[in-house]
Amino acid sequence: MVMHFPAIITLLALLLFTVTIFAVGAARIKYGVKAPATTGNENFERIFRVQMNTLENLVLFLPSLWLFSEYLSPLWSGILGVIWLIGRVDYMLSYMRSAEARSRGYAISALAFLVLAIGAAVGIVMRIMAGL
Amino acid sequence: MVMHFPAIITLLALLLFTVTIFAVGAARIKYGVKAPATTGNENFERIFRVQMNTLENLVLFLPSLWLFSEYLSPLWSGILGVIWLIGRVDYMLSYMRSAEARSRGYAISALAFLVLAIGAAVGIVMRIMAGL
Amino acid sequence: MVMHFPAIITLLALLLFTVTIFAVGAARIKYGVKAPATTGNENFERIFRVQMNTLENLVLFLPSLWLFSEYLSPLWSGILGVIWLIGRVDYMLSYMRSAEARSRGYAISALAFLVLAIGAAVGIVMRIMAGL
Repeated sequence: MVMHFPAIITLLALLLFTVTIFAVGAARIKYGVKAPATTGNENFERIFRVQMNTLENLVLFLPSLWLFSEYLSPLWSGILGVIWLIGRVDYMLSYMRSAEARSRGYAISALAFLVLAIGAAVGIVMRIMAGL
Repeated sequence: MVMHFPAIITLLALLLFTVTIFAVGAARIKYGVKAPATTGNENFERIFRVQMNTLENLVLFLPSLWLFSEYLSPLWSGILGVIWLIGRVDYMLSYMRSAEARSRGYAISALAFLVLAIGAAVGIVMRIMAGL
Repeated sequence: MVMHFPAIITLLALLLFTVTIFAVGAARIKYGVKAPATTGNENFERIFRVQMNTLENLVLFLPSLWLFSEYLSPLWSGILGVIWLIGRVDYMLSYMRSAEARSRGYAISALAFLVLAIGAAVGIVMRIMAGL
């Protein structure tokens, strides 16, 4: 089975997370929030929340991406992965501007994740019912 | 090899983590803790810690679940996964009530993780010694 | 393909993360920071940041370790994994002493991760260009 598409999506998702980590490093300097502190400046806190939220969603995303690839289709898994990535990039850029603006990107990526997870569940049930 | 059991456990673990994320969202509204803040109300902070702790343990759990499945037994991996899930649900429900009550669920899931990780290590050593 | 080396590295990385979790538990008692609080004492906050940072880097590390193993070489993947582990242990021990000392270990592990991620990307492109 050609798993190159989800493999590429996985690397892009790691790249996105790396960007959010760098953004926190830059924000530490810009807003004068020295490690180990993670509070004290609202602009810093938003950028820090982007990183943490990307981490949380990455942990949900990667296993469902690969289970969907394995049980249903690596092609559709990759396409849903692209949608997820678009949602996460939009979330990142919006939330870095203001906390209120983060909903659209969050919703897009949450939807893509939901389809991946439910699709994987359906795929597993289908495989078991087929006696495989 | 039939990997459906650990695959189902993986999806259930992602579902559990999703529940803890929703609980934080609901607690933001209930206790008036607006994003990006994560402190300021003790009830909110407990629910937030449940989410973070579930994240940490998920990252430990999933790789050991799959290594155990690959190197020892997907069946026993799945059974240990069920025990882990029970411990994490108990932890979540208890910690949301009070910080002191969280120990039992934590211990159950920590034990299941330990058996998975040590079992995986034993499985790898056995495979190497068998020259496979 | 012999995947035992990256499997062993994965278990050691989980062990390292477990150590940072225990360190936070011990620091809670030592510095009197009761759960769910994660702030209030600078020594505790450094040890807590070690745990969170290890978590973030683990989530970046494991997928790139396995993609590199799959697409290029499990042997080199394992060797880069050893370097990553050395960097993370140095980071942990240094940061627990002072926030300034954390750079060296961080740089070593970041470099190992970078080679893993770029190597995996190169491996995927090579595989696609070879028509596999």
